[in-house]
Amino acid sequence: MRHAAALLRLRGLAVFAGLVSLCVVAFAQTDPLPSWNDGPTKMAILEFVRVTTDTANSKFVPPEERIATFDQDGTLWVEHPMYTQVMYSLDGVPAVVTQKPELKNMEPFKTVLSGNKAAISKLTMPDLEKILAATLTGMTMDQFNAEVQKWLATAKDPRWNRPYTDLVYQPMLELMQYLRDNGYKTYIATGGGQDFVRVYASRVYGIPPEQVVGTMGGTTYSYDSSGKPILTKDPKLLLNDDKAGKPEGIHLMIGRRPYAAFGNSTGDKQMLEYTQAGGGARLMMLVHHDDAKREYAYGPAGGLPPTKVGTFSDALMSEAMKRGWHVISIKDDWNCVFPWESCAPARVSR
Amino acid sequence: MRHAAALLRLRGLAVFAGLVSLCVVAFAQTDPLPSWNDGPTKMAILEFVRVTTDTANSKFVPPEERIATFDQDGTLWVEHPMYTQVMYSLDGVPAVVTQKPELKNMEPFKTVLSGNKAAISKLTMPDLEKILAATLTGMTMDQFNAEVQKWLATAKDPRWNRPYTDLVYQPMLELMQYLRDNGYKTYIATGGGQDFVRVYASRVYGIPPEQVVGTMGGTTYSYDSSGKPILTKDPKLLLNDDKAGKPEGIHLMIGRRPYAAFGNSTGDKQMLEYTQAGGGARLMMLVHHDDAKREYAYGPAGGLPPTKVGTFSDALMSEAMKRGWHVISIKDDWNCVFPWESCAPARVSR
Repeated sequence: MRHAAALLRLRGLAVFAGLVSLCVVAFAQTDPLPSWNDGPTKMAILEFVRVTTDTANSKFVPPEERIATFDQDGTLWVEHPMYTQVMYSLDGVPAVVTQKPELKNMEPFKTVLSGNKAAISKLTMPDLEKILAATLTGMTMDQFNAEVQKWLATAKDPRWNRPYTDLVYQPMLELMQYLRDNGYKTYIATGGGQDFVRVYASRVYGIPPEQVVGTMGGTTYSYDSSGKPILTKDPKLLLNDDKAGKPEGIHLMIGRRPYAAFGNSTGDKQMLEYTQAGGGARLMMLVHHDDAKREYAYGPAGGLPPTKVGTFSDALMSEAMKRGWHVISIKDDWNCVFPWESCAPARVSR
Repeated sequence: MRHAAALLRLRGLAVFAGLVSLCVVAFAQTDPLPSWNDGPTKMAILEFVRVTTDTANSKFVPPEERIATFDQDGTLWVEHPMYTQVMYSLDGVPAVVTQKPELKNMEPFKTVLSGNKAAISKLTMPDLEKILAATLTGMTMDQFNAEVQKWLATAKDPRWNRPYTDLVYQPMLELMQYLRDNGYKTYIATGGGQDFVRVYASRVYGIPPEQVVGTMGGTTYSYDSSGKPILTKDPKLLLNDDKAGKPEGIHLMIGRRPYAAFGNSTGDKQMLEYTQAGGGARLMMLVHHDDAKREYAYGPAGGLPPTKVGTFSDALMSEAMKRGWHVISIKDDWNCVFPWESCAPARVSR
């Protein structure tokens, strides 16, 4: 009897141990955010989704109103040393000059053609705008899409020597997928060109073209020599989707206020304010680039080096603290940065 | 034996008759377009959906690319004697003049205030644009939405003495629902104000705000006296969503080419051309208002009276014939026009 009882006890332990491992496995399998370290940031995301999707909760949000907007550069993918779209435009200058030789000796094109990296890095915003206009407009939509696709397939970033579309943040891919799995429609709200981001947003982020809000240029509908309808990209700016332009662009394209908004720089402040002003459960988060080893470190918030590319000012940090916006520390909150790092479980369906 | 055999035969007949009634019932229950008369127009719709949703068909369209765009005025609801948004704006003139008394003796406001219907009906397009700008801009989005909602709840159309939102076409509601049931995303592409149509599109058509493409005005993001973020409607026109503006607006808002497009006037020609130019199975249709008894009759196509409100020109009719666009005859193709007519089975979920 004693022997039998001991055996039963042992069996019980084995069953218990088995259950524990099963639960651990089950928990590991169902953690929707494996690249996020446990802590207040991850908890805030899980809690937001829990309360807004529970019909019994006073903060429940009907599925059709579940809108989440994501800045792109510095929020979904790397923006340093320079925005990817600017790299595309700089690379496109030689082709533009071939088409329009009169630009060869004109600034800022002359500087770009010189290949002098120090001089190029000092180009002003108006200079860059001239380069963007010359390389992003004047062609048909079909030509533009083909050119961007071709560039993305061959261009490599200077640090990791990988295609730019590899430099997406695994934790943000998981976050977008988790929100979608819970009935949220995920949108990009970027200062980058709407047409540019649309070329790869579906493949890279699982976000279809109609859910990309960006800086918008006009197009002109006309006919080619064979009478076929064409859309040509105009240099006319319809909306600069940055700062106040972000809520304006979100209204124009979506017509609803987001329940969650994610950014990383002063250009995202108005989008987060606008989101929060809707009341009820709203989630506002800012990515803080504080990990020079695995990615980059810049601020000036947090005493990090200042930058013109994705400034996170001290004022923005104060605003975040005052208003209860969550600051995502890349160093502390993410156990994995990129999908191609060995740490990352590649489980996000895109 | 004979008796038994006869009985079996009778029973067989009864079973057969039962099956027939079952099939009739089943067919009646599954006809997705009961307000459409059998004929080539209805057949074209059914055939388009069949080939584009059958994975085995060479014309199969992946679900994410299934986009259908609908003009609103004259395509989804009544546009005569005048566009509903213009009625809204005319009704809003007294309130505008109360706010800005200096407009009282200025044209075109003076004419509107006179109540002289003959004079009002002669207002030119630039006159109407002044009235639209004065009544559709200058307020916050929240104020605008509340004002439109209030007006829609009380205003009645002059012929049927019903709310304007009752004057939707039952066959088009069925068509939109049928397309949605087959994985199509239905969009409005209207010359009317995007913000105006968004107020009721969800309730009336089952189309959410983010799927309304219309004439777009700018907004300005700022703060009210308490520091709360507000969006104010500007008089700045971003895009006139008519004629060439329709494909331009569709590109801006959707970034994909439609597979099906529905209109009723010369303002829809470019949208249909653009749709067809995508190749493969595409469905282009134009509603022809040829039923003065049940709705209105105007052209001038088909020898019907000319109109400035929703012109269907002879040139457009030739274009339709030449390009294989289907012309929907209200008289011949629709057995029912409005959802509140006794003929209409009110089965469309919105």
